[in-house]
Amino acid sequence: MKLVLGIDPGTAVTGFGVVALDGRVTTLVECGVIRTNARDPLPKRLHEVHQGVVELIARHRPDTISIEDVFYAKNVRTTVVLGHARGVILLAGQQAGLSIREYPPSEIKKAITGRGSATKEQVQFMVTRLLRLKSAPQPADAADGVAAALCACMSASLPKMPEFSLSALLAKAAQEKRR
Amino acid sequence: MKLVLGIDPGTAVTGFGVVALDGRVTTLVECGVIRTNARDPLPKRLHEVHQGVVELIARHRPDTISIEDVFYAKNVRTTVVLGHARGVILLAGQQAGLSIREYPPSEIKKAITGRGSATKEQVQFMVTRLLRLKSAPQPADAADGVAAALCACMSASLPKMPEFSLSALLAKAAQEKRR
Repeated sequence: MKLVLGIDPGTAVTGFGVVALDGRVTTLVECGVIRTNARDPLPKRLHEVHQGVVELIARHRPDTISIEDVFYAKNVRTTVVLGHARGVILLAGQQAGLSIREYPPSEIKKAITGRGSATKEQVQFMVTRLLRLKSAPQPADAADGVAAALCACMSASLPKMPEFSLSALLAKAAQEKRR
Repeated sequence: MKLVLGIDPGTAVTGFGVVALDGRVTTLVECGVIRTNARDPLPKRLHEVHQGVVELIARHRPDTISIEDVFYAKNVRTTVVLGHARGVILLAGQQAGLSIREYPPSEIKKAITGRGSATKEQVQFMVTRLLRLKSAPQPADAADGVAAALCACMSASLPKMPEFSLSALLAKAAQEKRR
């Protein structure tokens, strides 16, 4: 059995889901959100997000952390602040020595619904089906965390998926630059 | 006396400078860079940047950490990755309970040279003068970390310091050269 912690990063609300993978059967262990106060300064909020993820890792001891990649919002500042939150989440995973997976939002949607452009409702419907739940995880950000975890489970139980992760792309870009 | 740790964040090279402020006198304590390997995955590099800053804080016990704000590069991806690095640096400052200052690049340049659009060389020249060094801190990223620290020192010791204006010092330097 493998345990995957899925994270949908945010500075205001970070969604998470812990999913157990046994063979090809996935089961929801826990899901929820880490909320921070928008009136607090960014460093304090980053500290709370980091601490929240550190505690989740300590409680569940997952093998893998699966993190949704940056969504390139029209507002660049929003995207950059989201980058700060992802930074401390990736750090928490690295500090715990977990296997780290990163997936763009469209890849998570595709893994779960078969369509990269699926709506939030379609993703929630499929998450509910795949985990045999009575209703979709609430709030929606928690469902997105669960979807990230499911995506890692599904790529683990499949033959290779092309690697679209940010770090892989960066490494590739650095290699190309060196040539 | 106050101790300020200045940081110029980056994923490849993070520059830092530790500056002591005694009344109005600033003295360079240490400067350098934290380098990460471009071939390593992003989480590992973030861990190294965080660890490097944590160690600097443990060694110098600064009162304040002064961090250069995101430079909005034309390449949004570059800016977002820089956001990840800033996230773990802000986290290190918050974890240590430091007073945290953030300044946009133009504000740092203005505080040091009197001009927000000063060149890298002008900033290095003034950093060298202000700290009475024989030559500019090397490499350039270290000088940028020192500049961030100086910027916090100068806003702390305000009201304004007209004697630090670039043109006056440049004129003086030219005069001295002529003698």
